[in-house]
Amino acid sequence: MKKLLSLLAVACLTVAAFAQQALGPGTGLVSPEINPDHTVTFRLYAPKAVTVQLAGDFLPRVVDLQESPGGIWTYTTQALEGELYSYSFIVDGRRAMDPSNVHQNRDVATWTNIFTLSAEQGDKGWYYEVHSVPHGTVSHVWYNSPTLGTQRRMTVYTPAGYEDNPKAKYPVLYLLHGSGGDEDAWSDLGRTAQILDNLIAEGKAKPMIVVMPNGVWFNQAAPGAAVNMFQPTFQNSRSQSTVEVENSFPDIMDFIEKHYRVAKGYANTAVAGLSMGGRQSCALSMRYPKRFGYVGLFSGVATPEDNEAALDAVFAAHPKLYWIGCGKDDGIMVNSKKLKDYCDAKGYPATLYESDGGHIWRNWRIYLTIFVQQLFK
Amino acid sequence: MKKLLSLLAVACLTVAAFAQQALGPGTGLVSPEINPDHTVTFRLYAPKAVTVQLAGDFLPRVVDLQESPGGIWTYTTQALEGELYSYSFIVDGRRAMDPSNVHQNRDVATWTNIFTLSAEQGDKGWYYEVHSVPHGTVSHVWYNSPTLGTQRRMTVYTPAGYEDNPKAKYPVLYLLHGSGGDEDAWSDLGRTAQILDNLIAEGKAKPMIVVMPNGVWFNQAAPGAAVNMFQPTFQNSRSQSTVEVENSFPDIMDFIEKHYRVAKGYANTAVAGLSMGGRQSCALSMRYPKRFGYVGLFSGVATPEDNEAALDAVFAAHPKLYWIGCGKDDGIMVNSKKLKDYCDAKGYPATLYESDGGHIWRNWRIYLTIFVQQLFK
Repeated sequence: MKKLLSLLAVACLTVAAFAQQALGPGTGLVSPEINPDHTVTFRLYAPKAVTVQLAGDFLPRVVDLQESPGGIWTYTTQALEGELYSYSFIVDGRRAMDPSNVHQNRDVATWTNIFTLSAEQGDKGWYYEVHSVPHGTVSHVWYNSPTLGTQRRMTVYTPAGYEDNPKAKYPVLYLLHGSGGDEDAWSDLGRTAQILDNLIAEGKAKPMIVVMPNGVWFNQAAPGAAVNMFQPTFQNSRSQSTVEVENSFPDIMDFIEKHYRVAKGYANTAVAGLSMGGRQSCALSMRYPKRFGYVGLFSGVATPEDNEAALDAVFAAHPKLYWIGCGKDDGIMVNSKKLKDYCDAKGYPATLYESDGGHIWRNWRIYLTIFVQQLFK
Repeated sequence: MKKLLSLLAVACLTVAAFAQQALGPGTGLVSPEINPDHTVTFRLYAPKAVTVQLAGDFLPRVVDLQESPGGIWTYTTQALEGELYSYSFIVDGRRAMDPSNVHQNRDVATWTNIFTLSAEQGDKGWYYEVHSVPHGTVSHVWYNSPTLGTQRRMTVYTPAGYEDNPKAKYPVLYLLHGSGGDEDAWSDLGRTAQILDNLIAEGKAKPMIVVMPNGVWFNQAAPGAAVNMFQPTFQNSRSQSTVEVENSFPDIMDFIEKHYRVAKGYANTAVAGLSMGGRQSCALSMRYPKRFGYVGLFSGVATPEDNEAALDAVFAAHPKLYWIGCGKDDGIMVNSKKLKDYCDAKGYPATLYESDGGHIWRNWRIYLTIFVQQLFK
């Protein structure tokens, strides 16, 4: 019995030590530190490391940190423009999170440290940050999908003032994520709430509801909110099928129109998505051509070849905006241009916005920022 | 110009490579794997590592993983009981996340991998998992606090059925986090939504609204939702002052009672909290003795010495439940017992629940599970 008690005491001490470690005072280092000249300094305490490197989407290549006496490794970037940036350390060849920075994003199955930098109000980084403006509500809501025979989760943004104006009705943007993503992708990686809060506060976007469902039709919810502790993957062609999303999409719209104060109808309803979600948005606009007065296709389109009649039906309804965004280095540009060329040949008013870069979240935040300013006006 | 273009091309390729890395197919390993006999196997691919260790709150001490040919390190635990567990790898002396497991929790400033294990329906782990039961909504809401002169963020759980029963009114539990925590702590670390969903589905808890405000009075919101990208700390005595929370608490209750369908009054209102939040709950019950018919003090109490008259006023209102929970190894037990002894001496019906272990989230999830089953009945 005495032995058992002492074992238990050790166990309790060790459990307490594990918990205490988690609650420790942090590293005492500031990393990343955004300097007044918009250079950024990274620091890591790693006295036993042989090499410490930094990989980030603001760097042309992996760079080496320099060790100071005391085991603190440091690297300072050149001046950066306003943006949300991602990075990881690489310590002796192994990817490592920055223990001084609690800010992380999960993209599919990978966690990465992030930071935002804004050089001035109105630059990209500024729109992705939280400012002292009225804030909307972000809700994680479960709905029933009779078509798919299951409960599913969605994220819903309601703009500031929604709760205090009980008679106001709001237009709706349905916003779809990419392959391997989930209903948290647009709110977390896409900074939807921050972008909308800031644009609405500036008067540049109309107050609107943004509905971000889970677009992988056989998943109920994001990791951690789903019934098992599944590990997401980039998925396969089965997940990228749009037909189940098309079939079940009225379940989502019915739920939203029943539970939120929605300004219904063509002129008050938009659909947009990135990558797989762009293809889904394209398919949804063709399947229900009189429901979506605004269509946004971000790095994901259907090609016109097999869809001419459906595309003709979309434009026969005279959409108020048909907006295609794609990066110049994105393989999707070929099909984006085909779609734009088809529209031009037919005299359909489609916009093709060509950005720098490729198939990356940086572009999708830019497209969202541009797109929502043109909605419901 | 040609040089600039080629530099840009390199930059774009490398940015794309960084993004692609983040979207990679994962490690291909399963870790942790919960085996049919409830042992758990951990795996890490680290061919260059010299030592790989595992620290977890299910282990009495740090253990060594064994390397197999091919660079995969493995460790299998003994059979574990149903619970939510936390762990980290330690590779060559440095703490490392498990790249095969997307599931993580943030406690103050530290991210840790987690997993749940349930041996059978109704064990602790089972209550912390998502099951095929009706799910409530979790919303991140901003409210105005005139007392503190700022907008602040709170997390609100509304039970399944709330949206579909527009005339129903619901009792409210105000649930407060500990030092260094924020309005996400109870929903993320505390598994509030899962516990409530499961207990309500079983008929063991009444459908209720759970309001989880930010209890650090000078913080507006959790990291990432606040105006700057601050790094949270365990805080200091200034943050642990209860008086600002007491002063401004009516702002929270006013907002909730205005914006949600609340069954008001003493018999429909509970307050509970952990550690600092326990002291705040204790103080709130004394400050507003006729508002909270149910009081839960989890590893945090006020001592009776300076509060006798206030405690007498609390019990003069005949609370339906005055529940103290504390771990046997927790330093707070001394004061918890003082409070219980005072109540006993006065004939006040207070409950002291003594659990194993110390000042840890494992206990606070247990206390919440026990406490909410006794509310509003």
